Order: sequence, then structure tokens, then C-alpha cells
Amino acid sequence: MSHHTPHTTGTDDVAALPLADRAALGSGKNFWQTQDAGDVPSITLTDGPHGLRKQTGGVDHLGLSGSAPATCFPPAAGLSQSWDPDLVERIGAALADEAQAADVQVVLGPGVNITRSPLGGRNFEYYSEDPHLTGVLGTAWVTGLQSGGVGASLKHFALNNQETDRMRVSADVDQRPLHEIYLRAFRRIVEDARPWTVMCSYNAVNGVPVRHSRELLTDILRDEWGFDGVVVSDWGAVGGRLRSVAAGLDLQMPSDGGAADEEVVRAVSNGQLDEQTVTVAAQRVAALARRATAARREVSLDDATVEAHHALAREAAARSIVLLKNDEADGRHILPIAASGVTGSVAVIGPFAETSRYQGGGSSHVNPTRLDSPLELIKDRLAAPVTYAAGFTTDGSGRHSGLLAEAVEDAANADIAVVFLGLSPDQESEGFDRTDLALPAEQLGLLRAVRAVQDRVVVVLSHGGALDLTEVTELAPAILDANLLGQGGGAGIADVLTGEVNPSGKLAGTVPARLADTPAFLDFPGEHGHVRYSEGLFVGYRWYDARNLRVAYPFGHGLSYTTFAYDEAYGQPDDDGDGITVTVGVTNTGRRAGREVVQAYVSVPDSGQVRAPKVLAGFGSVTLEPGEREEIEIHLGRRDLEYRDVRSGRFVLEPGRYVVHLGSSSRDLRASVEVDLEGEDVRVPLTLESTLGEALAVPAVAEALGGFLGGLTGEDSGDGLGVDMAKMMASIPLDRIITFSGGSVTREQLEELLERVNG
Amino acid sequence: MSHHTPHTTGTDDVAALPLADRAALGSGKNFWQTQDAGDVPSITLTDGPHGLRKQTGGVDHLGLSGSAPATCFPPAAGLSQSWDPDLVERIGAALADEAQAADVQVVLGPGVNITRSPLGGRNFEYYSEDPHLTGVLGTAWVTGLQSGGVGASLKHFALNNQETDRMRVSADVDQRPLHEIYLRAFRRIVEDARPWTVMCSYNAVNGVPVRHSRELLTDILRDEWGFDGVVVSDWGAVGGRLRSVAAGLDLQMPSDGGAADEEVVRAVSNGQLDEQTVTVAAQRVAALARRATAARREVSLDDATVEAHHALAREAAARSIVLLKNDEADGRHILPIAASGVTGSVAVIGPFAETSRYQGGGSSHVNPTRLDSPLELIKDRLAAPVTYAAGFTTDGSGRHSGLLAEAVEDAANADIAVVFLGLSPDQESEGFDRTDLALPAEQLGLLRAVRAVQDRVVVVLSHGGALDLTEVTELAPAILDANLLGQGGGAGIADVLTGEVNPSGKLAGTVPARLADTPAFLDFPGEHGHVRYSEGLFVGYRWYDARNLRVAYPFGHGLSYTTFAYDEAYGQPDDDGDGITVTVGVTNTGRRAGREVVQAYVSVPDSGQVRAPKVLAGFGSVTLEPGEREEIEIHLGRRDLEYRDVRSGRFVLEPGRYVVHLGSSSRDLRASVEVDLEGEDVRVPLTLESTLGEALAVPAVAEALGGFLGGLTGEDSGDGLGVDMAKMMASIPLDRIITFSGGSVTREQLEELLERVNG
Repeated sequence: MSHHTPHTTGTDDVAALPLADRAALGSGKNFWQTQDAGDVPSITLTDGPHGLRKQTGGVDHLGLSGSAPATCFPPAAGLSQSWDPDLVERIGAALADEAQAADVQVVLGPGVNITRSPLGGRNFEYYSEDPHLTGVLGTAWVTGLQSGGVGASLKHFALNNQETDRMRVSADVDQRPLHEIYLRAFRRIVEDARPWTVMCSYNAVNGVPVRHSRELLTDILRDEWGFDGVVVSDWGAVGGRLRSVAAGLDLQMPSDGGAADEEVVRAVSNGQLDEQTVTVAAQRVAALARRATAARREVSLDDATVEAHHALAREAAARSIVLLKNDEADGRHILPIAASGVTGSVAVIGPFAETSRYQGGGSSHVNPTRLDSPLELIKDRLAAPVTYAAGFTTDGSGRHSGLLAEAVEDAANADIAVVFLGLSPDQESEGFDRTDLALPAEQLGLLRAVRAVQDRVVVVLSHGGALDLTEVTELAPAILDANLLGQGGGAGIADVLTGEVNPSGKLAGTVPARLADTPAFLDFPGEHGHVRYSEGLFVGYRWYDARNLRVAYPFGHGLSYTTFAYDEAYGQPDDDGDGITVTVGVTNTGRRAGREVVQAYVSVPDSGQVRAPKVLAGFGSVTLEPGEREEIEIHLGRRDLEYRDVRSGRFVLEPGRYVVHLGSSSRDLRASVEVDLEGEDVRVPLTLESTLGEALAVPAVAEALGGFLGGLTGEDSGDGLGVDMAKMMASIPLDRIITFSGGSVTREQLEELLERVNG
Repeated sequence: MSHHTPHTTGTDDVAALPLADRAALGSGKNFWQTQDAGDVPSITLTDGPHGLRKQTGGVDHLGLSGSAPATCFPPAAGLSQSWDPDLVERIGAALADEAQAADVQVVLGPGVNITRSPLGGRNFEYYSEDPHLTGVLGTAWVTGLQSGGVGASLKHFALNNQETDRMRVSADVDQRPLHEIYLRAFRRIVEDARPWTVMCSYNAVNGVPVRHSRELLTDILRDEWGFDGVVVSDWGAVGGRLRSVAAGLDLQMPSDGGAADEEVVRAVSNGQLDEQTVTVAAQRVAALARRATAARREVSLDDATVEAHHALAREAAARSIVLLKNDEADGRHILPIAASGVTGSVAVIGPFAETSRYQGGGSSHVNPTRLDSPLELIKDRLAAPVTYAAGFTTDGSGRHSGLLAEAVEDAANADIAVVFLGLSPDQESEGFDRTDLALPAEQLGLLRAVRAVQDRVVVVLSHGGALDLTEVTELAPAILDANLLGQGGGAGIADVLTGEVNPSGKLAGTVPARLADTPAFLDFPGEHGHVRYSEGLFVGYRWYDARNLRVAYPFGHGLSYTTFAYDEAYGQPDDDGDGITVTVGVTNTGRRAGREVVQAYVSVPDSGQVRAPKVLAGFGSVTLEPGEREEIEIHLGRRDLEYRDVRSGRFVLEPGRYVVHLGSSSRDLRASVEVDLEGEDVRVPLTLESTLGEALAVPAVAEALGGFLGGLTGEDSGDGLGVDMAKMMASIPLDRIITFSGGSVTREQLEELLERVNG
């Protein structure tokens, strides 16, 4: 197939290289660089993706020692709360500049795994529990990065959704959730943004290590989606390269000193491995290296660029903050502070106010060029006096009592208290999963004590994965979810608190009411090398909706300092019947300019397939002055409407009525519209295992069998036993008629009939 | 293996029969009888299991026309609420007498599938959501039946837990729930009661039709459990016999006119099928036929026997009723009526009072010898005047208004109203699954209207599967769950209402608060031929406990007209360390004689395996006069304590602390005791895929690799990135050291090390 052949020139000379060189192109020269061979250059790959992590000085065996300064943008879990693909694309472009400046050709990102459980240790590196949102933002990131001549590495392909036993565990998942949830963002990004590389993950899927999975690395990735780049292993994912090369892995990283290259050469010599497979992998790596080298630009990370990137990081941070709650006190909303009637002092409390928790631990950890302190920027931007008290420690020392008293005194003397709570870096990181959703007890104790002396309490939350917010919600009249915001988070938080920025972020994941309610609660992280994805299609809000569960804050939730009204919605199918365009007018009905993220969820109420009650299929945003109205148009594409049909092994657009709900969150739906799509029928050939119900739906079969079936049952059959004969009969497989007819219908007769009908 | 060889004599002459005869012994002579061949007699198999369904007159093709009268004992779903194995064994013995009288050699039961979803259409034929309770009662039934010289047919083996697509659907289930939940009752019954036959079910398991599954029909059933009887197909389960015979199926029913026999002969001739397999199957059928014939007894179903069996049916019915709720009014409990201060009339309402709903529809439908009317027996046993009004219809006609007014008037004029509600036969039956748990709206409407005029309302429920009782519980101060009680149900209900019998039944399944809370809600009944058993081990109360969900009535719940107090419990391990014996004193603290079912649930709080919070591992009962105290001893056997280890493919008794809770229901635990069991460790050989964490736990490996690992990471590794290096390293598979050492550790070195350590 043509898309198996790399699309750049120079492949013939690669085929002419000695076998040892071609094998060597399939592995690293060292920890971060590919081999050079003939005139194929070596290129550098480096960790990301919310900033560059290029190691300086000696590279250790695990690649985890210090790195050069780089702009730390919000990690994916924070950035996704912006629901802003344009912003994400601009960050991708800025990252490309930094990569060019550092002579890096591929940045290892984006991470587009689905946050299956809120306990996943690496959730902060991923966008969302929803594959559409993930796919759209990941596409923007890759597009931005690659527009600057630097390649992306779409990761971790696939189903690398936990840290427990992460290098071995098998994600046991059914075909529909595999394709509709876990692979869906990968598909969109491959098709729309054409990443230069895809990273093969450590884990296994349905018992087969991904590095050995021809189904994933070739059948789906290349044949079904048309991927034409390099499949690179996650660092250390490959142990024994032969099966991986055969499955479709091109590049094993990091270097193992050449041991696997020799293994490959030997295997080709003794016929264990097809030489052409090795050549094609080498050609792909060569094409990547040449394309990357051709795209080299001179970029200097001078002070102006550092400053500009920091400004972008701040903009992204502010846009990624979600206003979870903002009650009124004395007739005014608590936030923003500047407008809430505060005349006295502001008590800022909590060590996260001084030194922000702004990113997660592990291979994505960036050494930031600058780092905003929320406290400093709050002081900077407020006219009112600002006090600070730590209130608690994050070092687990448990010595809080003196700190607590001081914080409570500050709070009592102030007009408003801003309490920074969150998880410390040792509570969530790459390498392990969390075991609960709780905030540390001393933090909740502090909040209770502060609330006892102060009605106006704002909580600012720093964390990667979801938290149990039950008690925080009971206590605090205003809550900002600051997630992880990168190096500009301090400014972002100050901007939103003071009102310089009107928050417009929306949750990219549900905040559940209880850990025990979460979909994967009983099957995370699995045991003995297997984890069953038992929730199937019902990941995130799909689960809470389907089981009609109360949640603390729903997916897509986020308040504003203004309000928006939705008009009636309109919708129509595309000309080709493959998609839907919906339009709705939105009016800013408050007194501040603001941005509204409009979410489009699709239901198929009469579907013949198992479906979630609604799924996100599109979104957009409008920024409106007070009183202003604008129409927003959202296009829902075929990929967001179809389901994976397991009988035919492909995506199918089901015929019927699609209801599009437009909302301000997944549980605040404001308008809806119905659109009929013609779709396509799935015709499955009849077999001897087809049921009578299925077979009799075909007129020719009904005609051939009808007479016989009438005589199958006796006069008083069924009725006397209280059974519904029609239902009972409908489920009988065709070949059982042989038995139930006492042999008067033969297998040969049935086979003839099927041949006639299917043919 | 010796237990593959049938244990009766006469096998040699079967081997000497012509191949065609041996093949013929593997199929039916007609719908209900086996073939005779040589001197091997034909025997008759007949539907059951809560009564004999021997067809009379012409047998239709589906075997569903009228049958001879037989005692209709409570169906399994009702009988299981007795928690009384002795009673079940006596019913088995009575059934054997009826079978002998009818010249029937095998009764097709017991049905011991697990009621996975309350929607399962055939749940009324099954005992429970719990495999221990199912196994104990099924063992009693088989023991009772076979003690009378009639064979049982343990069914439906296996995982036949739904009606939707029942002849084809694949139950996709993981190994632990397969063995610990769905096969567990089958195992106990095979091992303890040695049923003469096991019935192979229609469906598939993990993609393989059970009839083709050598794993189920031979590896597990015969090799692991030691089954030595005949595997008979469910009627019409086999289409194409060759693979079934090879898998271990002995007898295909019903007759297909000889087509499959000829197929078998051809296949042996052309080498497709091993002749020895055919011979062994024929020998097993012959042994069964001879054993059954040898056990023939002359029994006459005379009037005295019919009367005695009806009395037994009544006793069973009364013992199977669960008193769900019994509030006080004016200082006295509503029930029993005789003691509740009723002086005026009793208003009996609802057509189920006149004609009981006493069994389910389908192949188990019995033509009863007699049929008690609850209304008649209430009139008979109460001194007070009794009125009757239908109140609603069950025919779906919707014409209730006149009926309702009459019923409300009766209720208003009476001292107490007894309202019979339930599902009509067309709402649940073999052949289809239910889609909700609701009682018909007109019934709830009637109950509301009655309650508006009468405080003393008793609801009596007739149904097979679980109901949504939210509104009934809100409205009615007293509720009897009469489930399905067989032909003596009318007397049983009257006995409990009036107080002649003090109820002691306990729920054999949870009554959930909402359908959306049920474990299989999102995966029942599946689609496109597959149903994922996504709840895994967490079936029934295991789910509600693990997810900490409120339920309407918990598993094991059931009130009495008296009260019981539990003393402190004692426990000790068996001498061989394989089981636990617990003892607890129970005192009747009320003013009536009564029976208490004491339930023993086991928790393993420090288990290294996924476990439900607690599981039923034993139970017993005491019958006590007022003020009387008795100690009850309950033995928990190894089979109820062990888990299925998927690494080693066997059951394992985990070492550690076992907590035994003794309770009156699964959520009314009264005493607990801790017992330490030595158990057994599972040693899995180290491989190149073992993690460093696993490998370093072995001292010899730690010694060999320790020095090298110390140098793997740089000075500042980990710390700066906020990762826990120890956790990170522990998850790395051994063979990845080759890469991370840059090749300085070789595969050969690692392989040598493993050989040394494992050997």
C-alpha cells in the first residue's frame, strides 16, 4: 500500500546501505539521538510536551537528570480546561521555536491517553476523559509544533492509562471502547495533523504487548488511518526487537549499545526476519531524519523570546482556570475580589500561594525560564493590603498548629481569605498511581478553621488528578480550579482573582462525588498483569450520565463573572449526509465581557447500539461584550457520530435521528435540535448460526421456511406454559431447525438456501 | 484418568457394539428418551425442576405442549428464600417419587445459574445471586432426588444467565469471576452430590460455544472436579455434533432423526473424529441408562402421596416467605394480623389473591395437582370477616377505575388492607428478559389510593425477578415478599399473614434501590452476540458493598415476628488449616417461637487479591422458643475461602487473617471473629518479563544485580523531577536492563541468572 512507503526522497540509497547500517537506523545512537548511517543524519528527540526537557551535562541511564531552562506551559490537564485549540496551536508553535533553538528535531508529545480513572498517576500529562476534546486539542498542538519544522511524537500509543505495572500490564478492553474511546483521539490526530512519529507504549493490550502488536502498529495505525511516519518505542519499551520490527516498530529507543541491532542482522541472515521489513523501517527513520534536518531553522531563545513565551504561558494559565463556584455574600458574588466590595485586607493562605504547584513529576518535568508566585502577583495587582500565612506544611511533618493559628488570625482580620490548597508533588507523579482523591486532612482542617472566622473564603486548588471536593464545596463559597498551570500560573490566578481576566475555563473531566462512584473503581489498577476495562464505553461523564449519578462538578462545567443566554438552536445535515452543522445564538446577559465555551453533545435515542446517553461531538467559543449577541456554528463530523461496528470491523454511521444538545456544561444543556441522517445499514451475511429472527427478516428466507415453521409447534404450545412463542422462536439459530424438525429439514437444504440468499 | 471411565459395569459390551449403535447412544430416540442399543435400555428425561413436567399426548417439536399433573413446589427463586437445605432435600426426594411413578429416570434440574442481572427472564428458575447459597441448596436438591433413584441434570452449564440471544450469545468473562462466581455452585454440587448428568447450555463463553468447549466440558468438569456422569445438551443446543463430541459432550437431545449419528459415523470412518471418543460417550450413556434402570422402584402417586406432597409444598411456601418490613401502628406491629389488634374486617385486594402467581413460564411450567388460593385460605384461617376486591386487572386492558373505587371503599371500611401486587406471567418468562424493575403503574396507583384511606396496609408481592420497591416501601408499613411459591403458596401466605407461621425467610438476592445501580446495568444483555460480564467478581451484594451503595433491601434480609440477640462469636481454624469453624450463641428475645438464619460472611482485609468486602461462606439456622438460647456452629470450608489464582490456574488459600462476620442479613452483622490461616504461597518462576521489584525480592537476584543497579541513575536523578525512583525502577521488566545498561548487561547473563534462581 502506497502509504506504507515514506513520502520523502532518498529511500533507494537507504535500501543500498549495508544490512548492519539499516538495522542500526532502527535504534538509538545514545539516549536521545538516532543513528547516522551513510548520508542519513542523526536527529535529537527530547521529552515534553508542555515544555522542552533537554538534558544538560551527563545523561544518566534513565534520562532523568537535570535539563536546560525552557518555558513551562500548562501541562495538558490544565491546558485542556481552556477548550481553546487556537491557544494550544500557538503554544505548539512556541515549543517549535524553543526546540529549534535547542537543536531538537522531535518533541515527545502530545500525550493523548484518556484519563480512565482519576487515580492515574500520569493524568496531569493527559487532556481529558473525553476523546473528542483530547483529539481536537492534540491536533492543534501537533499542527502548531510541526508548523515550526519540529516533529511531534503522538503518545502513548495505546491504552497506557495507569502507572501500576505500567511496563507490562495488559489493558483488556473490548473492541468498541478500544476504537470509540481509547484510539479515537489518536485517529483524529493522525488523520488531521499527520504527526511525524507515534510512540509505542510500554503496556500490552488484550494480552499482546503493544510493541508486538501488528494489529495496532500496522493494521490500525498505518492501514486504517494512513499513518506514514516513524513508530518509535517509548524509552525502554522494547526488550527483544525481532517481534517488534515485524509488528511495525521502526525505532527502538534508547540505545542498548547495539545488542538488538546485531540480533536483527542475525535474524535476517538465518531467515527469522524478513529483510524488507528492516529496510522499510530504516527508510522511514531516514525519511524522518532528512525531513527534520531540512526543516532546521536558526532560532535564538533570546530575552525577548523568553519574555514573549512567558506572556503566552500566562495567557494560557489564565484561560485554563475553571471557576467552580462563586456564591453571593451580601448581594455580591465573592469573586472577583476587585468587585466584591472588599475594602479591607486580603488574607492569602497556604504555601502553594508562595510557590505554586505548577507541573507534575517525571519525564515531562520542565526546568522553567521563570516562575510566577501567585502571592507576589496578587499583591502586585490589588490595591488592598495583602497578608500571607502558610497555615500548613506540605512536607508531611505534621507540625501545623502554630501555622494554623496564624492563618486563622489573618483570616479573621481580613475582608476575604484566599486559601490555596492542593496536592504536593510527592502525592502525584509519573511512576505510581494515587489511591484516593482526598486533600490532606491538615488542609481541610485549616479550611474549616478559616471558614469558622470568615464568610468570604475563596479556595484555589492546585492538583493534577481529580480531587474529592465534597467538603471544600460545603465550606467555601467560591472555588477556583487552578489544576496545574505552568510557570505563568501565578499571574493567571491573580488575573482571575482580581477580575482582570474573566474566567472561561471548563472542566475537561468530571469531579466525582465519591471515589466509589468512579467508573473504574473496582478494576483499577488490576492485578497479576491484567486490568479489565470493565466500564466499556462508559468512561467519565458517559458513566455518570448512564447510571444517573450525582457528581460534585460535571464535565464541561465552568462559571463566568458574566452570564450567557442561549437562543433556540438550528441544525442541518451536511450535503453528503456525513455530518451535522448546528447554529445557536448566544447573548452576554451580564455586565462584563466574557467568553463562553459552547458544547455540543449528541444523543441517538433510538439507536440499535449500546450508547452513552450523550457524547461530546463538537464545541466552540464566543467572546462577547455585555449585551452582545453572536451566532456560533459548530460542525459535527462523521467521526464524532459513528460507532465501531464489531460485526463488520469498521466505523458505521447509524441511520436515524440524532439529537444535538448545546450546553454550557454536560449537565447544563440550554438548547437542542434534531437532525435525521441517512447513514448506512450493516448487512451481515446469513449463516447457519444466524437466528430465525434474523433470517426471517429476509423475505426469501421467510418464504422458504414459513410453511415449515408453522407446523413446528403443537396446538397448545406456549400459551399453557406462559411463554411468548414468537420471542422463543426468534432466538433459535438456523441450524437447530435440523434438530427441531426431527431431521426433516437437512443441513444441505439450509446451506443451499443461504447460498441463494447471500449470493 | 480413572474418573473418566464410567463407574458402573457393562462398558465392554458397549465398546463391542457396532459403531452406528455407539453413535446412536449419543443422541435421543425422540424428544424425551435416549436410544436403546444392544441390551442398553432407553431412559426418559423430563423437564423440572420444581415439579415434573412430563408431556402427555403428542409431543410437539419444541416440547412445550401440555403435561401430566405433578406437585408444583416453589420455583428455585422462591425456595431459596428458605435458606433451608434440609427442606430442599426433602423436596428432591418427593420429586424422585413422582418421577418413579411417572417412569422418568432423569429430571432436568437443578438450575444453578447465578442471577447476574435482576432483568434475567429466567431468574425465577435460579436460586440466588450468591454462589455459596446456590451451591448448598443445589447440593441438597440433587442429594434428595438421587436418593430416590432418579438422576439430576445440573444445568445450565454454564453462564446461561440471560434470555436475549440465549442460544448464541457469548458470555465474555474473566477467569476469576468464571471460577469464583459462575462455576462455583456447579463445582460444589458435582463434588458433593455427584449428579448423574450435567446439561450443556446453549450459549458461548468467551467466544466458544459451550458445546464446543473442551475447557468447560472436560478440563474443568471432569479433570478438575471429577465428574463421571453424562454431559447432555440442552434441548437443541447442538447443531453439528462432531466438535461437541470431541469437546466432551455425550448425549445430544432431542432426536434429530439420526442425521447427526450418521455424521458421527462418517467422521470416524474418514478419520475426522477419534472412535474412542464416541465409544466413551456411548459407555457413559449406557452406564447412566443401566444405573437408572437398576434404581427403578414402584411408586404410586395415589391420593395420600398427592396430599403429602401438597403439604410439603405448603410447608416450603411458608418457609420461603420473606417479611421485608413490619412497622408498628398504635404500638403494635402490623403483622401478624391475628396479633395486631384487628377487630373489624380484613380487606383483601388484588387478583393475585384469588389466583396466585405461583410459578414462571416456560419449560419448567408444571401442571399442579392442586392450587391454593390465598384468599380462600385467609378466609379459612381468620375469624374476622374478609372482603375481596380485585382493584386492578392484569390483562393490560387498563380498565381499572371501577375496580379501584370498589377496592378503596373496602379498604376504608376495613381494619386492615392486604394488597396483593406483582408481575403477571406475560411480564416474566423463559424466552425473554425484562427491561425494567417496575410494578405496573395501575398497581402502584391502587396502592396509593388504598393507603390514602387506610394506615394498616400489608403488601404481598408475587414475582420472579427483583422489583423496584421504592414506592411500595414508602407507602406500605408491612411487606411480605412471596416471590413465587408453587401450588401451596396460598396456604403459606395465609399462614404467615395470620401468624400460624412465624416467617424466617431471607432474601437470596439484593433488592436494589434503582435499576441504574445494578452491577450489570450497562452490560445487559449485550449486543451483536457478546455480553461482557463487566462487573467481574462484584455480582449482587458484592457490588453494592464494594461501591457503598444504598439498597432497598439487602441480601440476606428478612424479619421475624420475634427478635434474636447474638452473643460474642468464637472461631478457630480446622486442624488441617483448610477451614474455619465459628460458634455463636443466639437467643430468642421476643415473645414468639421463631427460626433465625445465621449468615457467616468472610472478609480478608489485608488480601493481596481483588476481593469483595465480604462474601457468604456459610450459614445455618436455629429454631428457638421465647427466651431460649442455643449455640450454632458454622463450618466454612476451604472452597468458600480460596480464590482462583490466574497465574497458576488453580484455587489458592491465601495466607493471612480472615474475619468472619455473623449476621442476620448482609447489612445487619451482629458479631465477628478473626482467624489466621497459614494458607499457601504462590511461587511464580521469574522470567525476563518479571519486574525488578519481583526479581529483587529474591535474595540471589538482589545480590547479582544490586551493584549494577546502584549505578543506573545519575546523582540528581529523580529528585529534581519529583519522581519516586524506587517505585519507577521496581516496575521495569528484567530484560529492559539490557537497554538501560546500554548493553553492558546481556540477555545471556540474565538468562543464566534466572536458570540458577528458578532451578
